[in-house]
Amino acid sequence: MISEKMLELGRKRSEIREIFEYGKKRGSEIGADKVFDFSIGNPNVPAPEFIKETIIDLLMNEDPTKIHGYTSAQGDLSVRKALADHINSKYGTDITADHFYLTAGAAASLSMCCRALAIPGDEFLTFAPYFPEYKVYVESAGAVLSVIPANTENFQVDLEKFEKAVNKNTKAVIINSPNNPSGVVYSLDTIKKICSIMEKKSEEFGHVIYLVSDEPYRELVYGDVEVPFLLNHYDNTFVCYSYSKSLSLPGERIGYVLVSNRMHDAEDVYAAVCGAGRALGYVCAPSLFQYLIARCIGRTSDISIYKKNRDILYSALKEMGYECAKPDGAFYLFVKALEPDAAAFCEKAKKHEILLVPGDDFGCPGYVRISYCVRTDQIEASLPAFEKLAAEYKK
Amino acid sequence: MISEKMLELGRKRSEIREIFEYGKKRGSEIGADKVFDFSIGNPNVPAPEFIKETIIDLLMNEDPTKIHGYTSAQGDLSVRKALADHINSKYGTDITADHFYLTAGAAASLSMCCRALAIPGDEFLTFAPYFPEYKVYVESAGAVLSVIPANTENFQVDLEKFEKAVNKNTKAVIINSPNNPSGVVYSLDTIKKICSIMEKKSEEFGHVIYLVSDEPYRELVYGDVEVPFLLNHYDNTFVCYSYSKSLSLPGERIGYVLVSNRMHDAEDVYAAVCGAGRALGYVCAPSLFQYLIARCIGRTSDISIYKKNRDILYSALKEMGYECAKPDGAFYLFVKALEPDAAAFCEKAKKHEILLVPGDDFGCPGYVRISYCVRTDQIEASLPAFEKLAAEYKK
Repeated sequence: MISEKMLELGRKRSEIREIFEYGKKRGSEIGADKVFDFSIGNPNVPAPEFIKETIIDLLMNEDPTKIHGYTSAQGDLSVRKALADHINSKYGTDITADHFYLTAGAAASLSMCCRALAIPGDEFLTFAPYFPEYKVYVESAGAVLSVIPANTENFQVDLEKFEKAVNKNTKAVIINSPNNPSGVVYSLDTIKKICSIMEKKSEEFGHVIYLVSDEPYRELVYGDVEVPFLLNHYDNTFVCYSYSKSLSLPGERIGYVLVSNRMHDAEDVYAAVCGAGRALGYVCAPSLFQYLIARCIGRTSDISIYKKNRDILYSALKEMGYECAKPDGAFYLFVKALEPDAAAFCEKAKKHEILLVPGDDFGCPGYVRISYCVRTDQIEASLPAFEKLAAEYKK
Repeated sequence: MISEKMLELGRKRSEIREIFEYGKKRGSEIGADKVFDFSIGNPNVPAPEFIKETIIDLLMNEDPTKIHGYTSAQGDLSVRKALADHINSKYGTDITADHFYLTAGAAASLSMCCRALAIPGDEFLTFAPYFPEYKVYVESAGAVLSVIPANTENFQVDLEKFEKAVNKNTKAVIINSPNNPSGVVYSLDTIKKICSIMEKKSEEFGHVIYLVSDEPYRELVYGDVEVPFLLNHYDNTFVCYSYSKSLSLPGERIGYVLVSNRMHDAEDVYAAVCGAGRALGYVCAPSLFQYLIARCIGRTSDISIYKKNRDILYSALKEMGYECAKPDGAFYLFVKALEPDAAAFCEKAKKHEILLVPGDDFGCPGYVRISYCVRTDQIEASLPAFEKLAAEYKK
């Protein structure tokens, strides 16, 4: 009698969330310090001091009816202007405030882009490994998600399979780099080849194929790796951004959709994004945090902690014999399970109080995701457990 | 090529939002003080001092990774427990934390309830005058909204027409009291009769008919008027609540869905609400404001200002010859336009810098909505303009 689809989505919760809930419960039983919860991308680097200071400054010096009041649905104009200026000066683009729609985070951004674009019969493509909620957003918008199998050589993309997969029903391609769950950053070469295939196929099929770039980890890269800015490589691009990771504000739900000014019919597409926001019940992005991000433009949390975590964990795991993609960004390691069944491997890890997420839901069986956005001492404390886990398989 | 539905929703924005945008533009031209913007329910009573103090206390004394971190999708457990305790002690119910789902405000709550319930062919019913976005949420969930015409005698509901309208496809009835746009509070008698018709019809058609109660104005009532709590009158009830009005936090997007513990299949319905949240891209309600509301339970903004505004405006308008429903709650007056075409009347009002919303979109042509949640001096300053407007029609 009620919606079977929603019931199913609600009953079978996201696997990541299930493990996260287990971790909280287990932590309350044996002490949170004893559980090595690598399940969720909940940054353990605290939001920087300037976040606290800026919020207090807004509260003390601005009119409460402004900072807590409705903004325009697409976000406060001054905030959107500040974002456009920043992106233009950083990436040499020429977008305006009217290309931004502030959202309740990247999940909302993706959900809105899917709904703005999808018509029945449409297909969206993405590359494994991929964030499992893509499937939920695409299907809820009435389209289907097809997945290009992972290139487990180096976790760049399998271009040959991609080129074959694009077809007349392909409405959009979702990419995510730095990647969740692999931590891999798609190289400039990879990006150029993806875009070139998309341009060729758009022409072949006589319709636009959109690129939806999910970029919550854009700033989280280590060493001299660069993340290409996709507006400069493909005209029909949406950028879905979130401050969850870069400013350690995941619970606050603040991010944006950026519609490229060079997009075909950019104005209509932007209007459809606004329509999708309205249909979903988004009234405006949380207002205090809109004003906050405008004041914190270009700043990030202390991401050196993630680099340190990555370095410790990556080299320790390699030394113990684990196989792992080279992680240049985000805060994930994607490790080959020590048996073919990743879920069984995760169950064994759980016995050592290590909580991992099987790669199956990310479209990449046989691997597990480790979220290393935890305190460095927790990483260090977990190493003997990883060692014991590896030893079990050496018996 | 993109979604026509979303494009249409995005192009034809909510009329209220259009007028609100006009008001902001006009204010920047002639000075915000010169525009009597009665268009939007953006509370002009500032959020109380204790909101500022509580936020600062949370920032200074709590772990930032907690207060800005992901909570469970349905909201932090301690917050939901505090809400359940409060509702139980206030209304004598026996709900638990597991009946609450914290949302990004009432719009999100409504959108989620519609999606959790709707299957193709379903019809939702509501009573004119009604908040126009109901149509958007219901239709986006794949159902249709049918509207019971207004009872313009007293703006309670037309029970006879309601009873005739309920049919085998009726999945749910949406009610909103204190009402936007009329300001009328449905009496206990009205509520009992609505519920009794719904019970009878549920039995007649052999399936549950749900009641969705949109209650952002629950605390905003004046004098000794009481708002019946619907969980105590009808088992199959959802309460959609928001702190936008009661705590003057409309931009912050914080509210909840409460699923009655006495609902048929309450557990499944709650799961479907969770599924709908997931499908829409809601990850969790803004976390800082979750913790805030738990600490401010039972408190409200200084709503005496609204009462004062209502008293001044209602008696002044009556004296000038305007006809108006008796407003016992919310912060709206629903006034009969001085000509049959409410939109034409609003255009004339605009010439006097008075911004009103025509009743047509609320399903009640010939009336206009006045949002009196503005500063009292703005109410007072607007009276000569209302006088001149009335005089135009007396020529």
